[in-house]
Amino acid sequence: MTQSSTPPNGSLNLRPAMPADIPQILRFIRDLATYEREPDAVHATEADLLRDGFGEPKRFDCLIAELNESGATIPAGFALYFYNYSTWLGHAGIYLEDLYVSPEHRGKGIGKALLTRVAAIAVAEGCPRFEWSVLDWNAPSIDFYHQLGAVMKSEWKGMQVSGDALKALASSGK
Amino acid sequence: MTQSSTPPNGSLNLRPAMPADIPQILRFIRDLATYEREPDAVHATEADLLRDGFGEPKRFDCLIAELNESGATIPAGFALYFYNYSTWLGHAGIYLEDLYVSPEHRGKGIGKALLTRVAAIAVAEGCPRFEWSVLDWNAPSIDFYHQLGAVMKSEWKGMQVSGDALKALASSGK
Repeated sequence: MTQSSTPPNGSLNLRPAMPADIPQILRFIRDLATYEREPDAVHATEADLLRDGFGEPKRFDCLIAELNESGATIPAGFALYFYNYSTWLGHAGIYLEDLYVSPEHRGKGIGKALLTRVAAIAVAEGCPRFEWSVLDWNAPSIDFYHQLGAVMKSEWKGMQVSGDALKALASSGK
Repeated sequence: MTQSSTPPNGSLNLRPAMPADIPQILRFIRDLATYEREPDAVHATEADLLRDGFGEPKRFDCLIAELNESGATIPAGFALYFYNYSTWLGHAGIYLEDLYVSPEHRGKGIGKALLTRVAAIAVAEGCPRFEWSVLDWNAPSIDFYHQLGAVMKSEWKGMQVSGDALKALASSGK
């Protein structure tokens, strides 16, 4: 009796990204920016992602979701995260920077599978918190996250300084 | 001719934190939580901060602000930060988790000096962004940050899952 090593048609596989996935990750990042109404916001290159995802210091981790369809492996989505820090809890947490599923593969539970897998990594590593951000107009995602047990940190607002304003601030102390 | 090595009275010194600063850092963290109306939220211990600030993996960096007063060195505030990641910019940025100045030392420019120093570290390390969060009722801080060139990411809301909800989410994929 032999056992086939071919996964069932339509089955989902989640795995850590490898350097060979970088062109696909960059395509996902660009598709996500377009979905977030910022199609020209992506300046990252494949070299940037290789350096920061697979070099030292390693700045992020990434999971790839792929579907097995008729013997082929189809990339369907990704989750990219890094470690933040809570001084209240005295422990690193996981911050999910990007979660994306290709439009043609939505409704198959892939987003939930990715989010659940990152939550499991957080628990396995003793991280007491798992966080991410959502656009306030993205009601379907907000509902989805609430259903998964997440709460919105409504009181907190993000502040950001970048570009020339960052350089000006940096040099104002000299 | 000899030159005194004693700094002028009232002068401010910013320096990277050392392990010996941990008891003071934990006091600052508790004082900041009280200011943020969450006095019981701090569960961090000195051992946690030692492991995560000075061990491997190193999860945060910290600057101490101290004043020289009548020959004594008085801790006046701190800034604690870590590296986040922008997939749009393809580079790590700096995220300022905590910025705090003791009430008796406010109005002396210490908060601005700490923020400016972290901005300078970001620029020196090629980080294109420097970010932090502010409570939406904290109008004086919001005004202060706007004056320094920061913009508010009003569209983005933070989501968080922790404790039993995180464990439930993590195990829902099994």
